[in-house]
Amino acid sequence: MARPSSQFNGAISMTKKQTVASGEERLIERHFRPLAKHPGAFNLVDDAAALAPPAGCDLVLTVDGIVGGVHFFPDDPSDAIAKKALRVNLSDLAAKGARPLGFLLTLALPKEIGERWLASFARGLGEDADTYDCPLLGGDTVRTPGPVTISIAAFGAVPHGKMARRSGARPGDRVVVTGTIGDAALGLLLLRDAAIGKRWGLDRRAQAQLEARYLLPQPRTAIADLIGAYANAAMDVSDGLAGDLDKLCRASGVAAEIAVERVPLSDAARAALAKKPALIETILTGGDDYEVLATVPARKVAALRRQASAAGVAVTEIGTVTAEKGTARFLGRDGKRLVFAHPSFSHF
Amino acid sequence: MARPSSQFNGAISMTKKQTVASGEERLIERHFRPLAKHPGAFNLVDDAAALAPPAGCDLVLTVDGIVGGVHFFPDDPSDAIAKKALRVNLSDLAAKGARPLGFLLTLALPKEIGERWLASFARGLGEDADTYDCPLLGGDTVRTPGPVTISIAAFGAVPHGKMARRSGARPGDRVVVTGTIGDAALGLLLLRDAAIGKRWGLDRRAQAQLEARYLLPQPRTAIADLIGAYANAAMDVSDGLAGDLDKLCRASGVAAEIAVERVPLSDAARAALAKKPALIETILTGGDDYEVLATVPARKVAALRRQASAAGVAVTEIGTVTAEKGTARFLGRDGKRLVFAHPSFSHF
Repeated sequence: MARPSSQFNGAISMTKKQTVASGEERLIERHFRPLAKHPGAFNLVDDAAALAPPAGCDLVLTVDGIVGGVHFFPDDPSDAIAKKALRVNLSDLAAKGARPLGFLLTLALPKEIGERWLASFARGLGEDADTYDCPLLGGDTVRTPGPVTISIAAFGAVPHGKMARRSGARPGDRVVVTGTIGDAALGLLLLRDAAIGKRWGLDRRAQAQLEARYLLPQPRTAIADLIGAYANAAMDVSDGLAGDLDKLCRASGVAAEIAVERVPLSDAARAALAKKPALIETILTGGDDYEVLATVPARKVAALRRQASAAGVAVTEIGTVTAEKGTARFLGRDGKRLVFAHPSFSHF
Repeated sequence: MARPSSQFNGAISMTKKQTVASGEERLIERHFRPLAKHPGAFNLVDDAAALAPPAGCDLVLTVDGIVGGVHFFPDDPSDAIAKKALRVNLSDLAAKGARPLGFLLTLALPKEIGERWLASFARGLGEDADTYDCPLLGGDTVRTPGPVTISIAAFGAVPHGKMARRSGARPGDRVVVTGTIGDAALGLLLLRDAAIGKRWGLDRRAQAQLEARYLLPQPRTAIADLIGAYANAAMDVSDGLAGDLDKLCRASGVAAEIAVERVPLSDAARAALAKKPALIETILTGGDDYEVLATVPARKVAALRRQASAAGVAVTEIGTVTAEKGTARFLGRDGKRLVFAHPSFSHF
């Protein structure tokens, strides 16, 4: 790469005003200032934000980066990109039992990104900030010769010492998941090759439902408190249920046995699976689910299910934690163990 | 950009273990786990970090992104890149009166980045995390088809409600800066054209000193508490003293009058300026100084200077806050006002 001819400079903070209203200043005023509703964001005109965590609470911190052409299609609608960038973090917070407090945004933009893309990006981000009560606290916009790159660091609050961990699972716990599993992985396949939908026997509506699950995660923020109250261990499912449950088992020094037929599927996923049984591997390992995976003492499962349902989130029991140190075993209806070629996803 | 052929996936968290030890897992274990010394980082094996802010304190949050070819030379040593990425944030914290608590890292890596680059990057980051007592709390590594892109979100603590703001300057306050101004801007010019050094009459040592100031900011963490205790307003100088003081004046609804000859310069900068007086504009507007600019009640300046000096940081009084609403006026020895073509820097 050639040495840049323009003057180098430290990152230009979103929170810094330029003397002459610069392009960046206008960009921030127009698009991002309206999102900075938290008083500690100081309307994005200071160098940093201030946040007073609720008394007796720990802060839970999480960060995720997404890159155009790697984690989203460059021509995805930019409001959906913004929402996905925030929601993958909200999903982590929910799985840790944390209520959202706010977020910081780093946005690296190539020159070809215009006003329309930005306006839609900011609108999407603002809608979700409102929906999930997670305001923009500050950020940084920078130029890049590469693709759009977004990093969001999100902050939540849990009662002191009560962050739900991966490592708390105990033998006898029941394994539960929220929502439905596998939709996003199937949706991604459909987005990459629309013809597949026909082979799976899906109508347009079913296809659209699966694609939407890939484009727009549904973080389970509504039951964050319940996860904190009932789960011995929890994490969100982002790299595939099989691999993520393996990780939880390893962190906890336990194993788990899952009845595949109990894994909750959407009608669309069920239809595709009926047509092509091999899709079970995609469903259980594909990832991008952004559901909560948790282990819960057996006597508490009913209460969790009831209260989660009242909050609009389905919780399904899919198996049991066992005492061996090992990994998750997924058992078919015939009692045979499913073996996956790639239980988990990695870009590296 | 072509649609990627590999499976898309949500961001891969540094805090997520892969089932099979993946390249990313090895990368994290080898390079980043040793940096996660904070107990709330859970050795990077959970999905999120937990941070209990000190009692009675607000969290101060700041984020900066830097991009290869934009904010650093792609062939800069990667330990220096890492340090710069962290230090620009530490500089913001110091200027807000905040003691560092920790940071989150997002690291987008192109394929051609190898083990050696990463090892040096992590070593540099770890050295600074130790030096500034600011441990790694968590992060995310992702692939990018673009240049190396680094975003760091850093967290500090200030007594509740006491974050030093841009907006607190009062007429009669004295304007002070730490360290020396303009070195990094001159260093950048030297890095881009080594022949300039001769024209400025600089020996190798002076040249290296200026270049080092560009490559490696010196955050004034040692006097963060003093800034919090003494300053009515403060910010760090990153986009140039002239433009940044303008911003502080605007945020505070005041003006300022600066005696140019009182602006502290290094011997190297002074030598270059003697040879080429026009460099005064580069010095006052070039940026990347990462010094603290503050306004302090007149009666407190001596105590601040004395205590900062004891902590190893020079503090110099350069002017006075005045009551008009306006911008900063830089006055030469002849009493004439300097007018700058570009008082501040913007990539946009």
